[in-house]
Amino acid sequence: MRNLLMTVCYEGTAYYGFQTQPNGNTIQDHLEAAIYTITREEDVKIHASGRTDAGVHARAQPFHYVTATDIPIERWAYAINGRLPKDIRITNVQEVPLSFHSRRSAKRKTYRYSINANRVPDVFQRNFQFHHPGKLNVNDMIEACPYLIGTYDFTSFASRYSTKASHVRTIYDAHIVHDTTSEFLGTREQGIIHFYITGNGFLQHMVRIIVGTLLEIGEGKRSPDSLKMALEAKDRAAAGPTAESHGLMLWSVEYDEA
Amino acid sequence: MRNLLMTVCYEGTAYYGFQTQPNGNTIQDHLEAAIYTITREEDVKIHASGRTDAGVHARAQPFHYVTATDIPIERWAYAINGRLPKDIRITNVQEVPLSFHSRRSAKRKTYRYSINANRVPDVFQRNFQFHHPGKLNVNDMIEACPYLIGTYDFTSFASRYSTKASHVRTIYDAHIVHDTTSEFLGTREQGIIHFYITGNGFLQHMVRIIVGTLLEIGEGKRSPDSLKMALEAKDRAAAGPTAESHGLMLWSVEYDEA
Repeated sequence: MRNLLMTVCYEGTAYYGFQTQPNGNTIQDHLEAAIYTITREEDVKIHASGRTDAGVHARAQPFHYVTATDIPIERWAYAINGRLPKDIRITNVQEVPLSFHSRRSAKRKTYRYSINANRVPDVFQRNFQFHHPGKLNVNDMIEACPYLIGTYDFTSFASRYSTKASHVRTIYDAHIVHDTTSEFLGTREQGIIHFYITGNGFLQHMVRIIVGTLLEIGEGKRSPDSLKMALEAKDRAAAGPTAESHGLMLWSVEYDEA
Repeated sequence: MRNLLMTVCYEGTAYYGFQTQPNGNTIQDHLEAAIYTITREEDVKIHASGRTDAGVHARAQPFHYVTATDIPIERWAYAINGRLPKDIRITNVQEVPLSFHSRRSAKRKTYRYSINANRVPDVFQRNFQFHHPGKLNVNDMIEACPYLIGTYDFTSFASRYSTKASHVRTIYDAHIVHDTTSEFLGTREQGIIHFYITGNGFLQHMVRIIVGTLLEIGEGKRSPDSLKMALEAKDRAAAGPTAESHGLMLWSVEYDEA
């Protein structure tokens, strides 16, 4: 038996998220169907580093699959990609120890959330950017980010339907890259706001609720330090709304050695 | 009467090109329908700086429209964009003299053609990049570009169905930007090849035939100076195949003053 760690890149627009759902059309369904056509192994079951919601994208999402086949590793990506829709592609395959688990072995995950604050949405990025043409105080949003860094109970920033026993997570980094070069558009633009957040794990909707709260800070509805107070409240009602899914992208997952 | 010069940005994937066709679903059809809902003027007819083929994109394509309405200029883009599909957006509107014509007044047009020469296509750019994972000698392609600059009869690089009286065009610039930073993928990659070409006008399929010929040069099927010989032949058979449309984007159109 071999344990193969693969990395998948996908545009989530057309799918109901990563994980298999009763109604199908998930990334996992398509990956397992493609792997089955190559391996003909019964009950193909892949194990991902985590879930993504419907409409969320992944730049590099790892998953592993244990196989009894002897298909050479350098053939895998090419063979599977030929059986996948064009908006899902395997970008890397490597063999790892059988003890490796793509979720349990993961040390750090990074997400990116992108906001287009220009007047007109960017046609070419429309599925990857939340469009917010209204006035945003980006400096206040930047000032709020450090309040997220540390080990906290993130109950205020988790879906009320979260079933996790503990809502304590550690955030290693949270920062904004504000791109004010406007390649496609004219003047009077607020640019693109990329929010990056890295942690040891994330609760359901956590990044999107953080972004919804940051947007309220940018809009002047909250002060930057209200983020700290929202954290301390441990109450979903203390945070902002859940930002739309299409601006979110799983950026990377890191392992100790991989 | 006012003459409004507008700039449109679109992803061409879903459309049969810019210009109205008997079967509809063109960029022009959508723009005219959206303008009609705002102006209620009879026989709404826009005039573009040029055509684009099915599947070709535009970063910034100008067109003009003469209107008797007094809708304020700052309201136009917002109103029309609300009636357009998400993959078409007006990015700029300005008033120009009634004598201005978006095609006849155009001085320089620039196109970009993008080739992804990495092993795996970039999911997020899949509709904007032609994927060519095979070996390419990019230096030879770069070496060939200067042969295009100047005033020549481009019959070898025009569709056999071209109906233009003259195939003489002037190319001001042609160059390659080779981006070897591979944000999304691993090592052993050839990067992204962006070919930019600027001229006073282009014949049907001209940029795509030039790119098809450059690709044969990159593949080692032709020498860089074969581009010069192909030009001199004034024979479509002397050039390479027509590259796929989806890698092509109308980049910009310049006027003397606008």
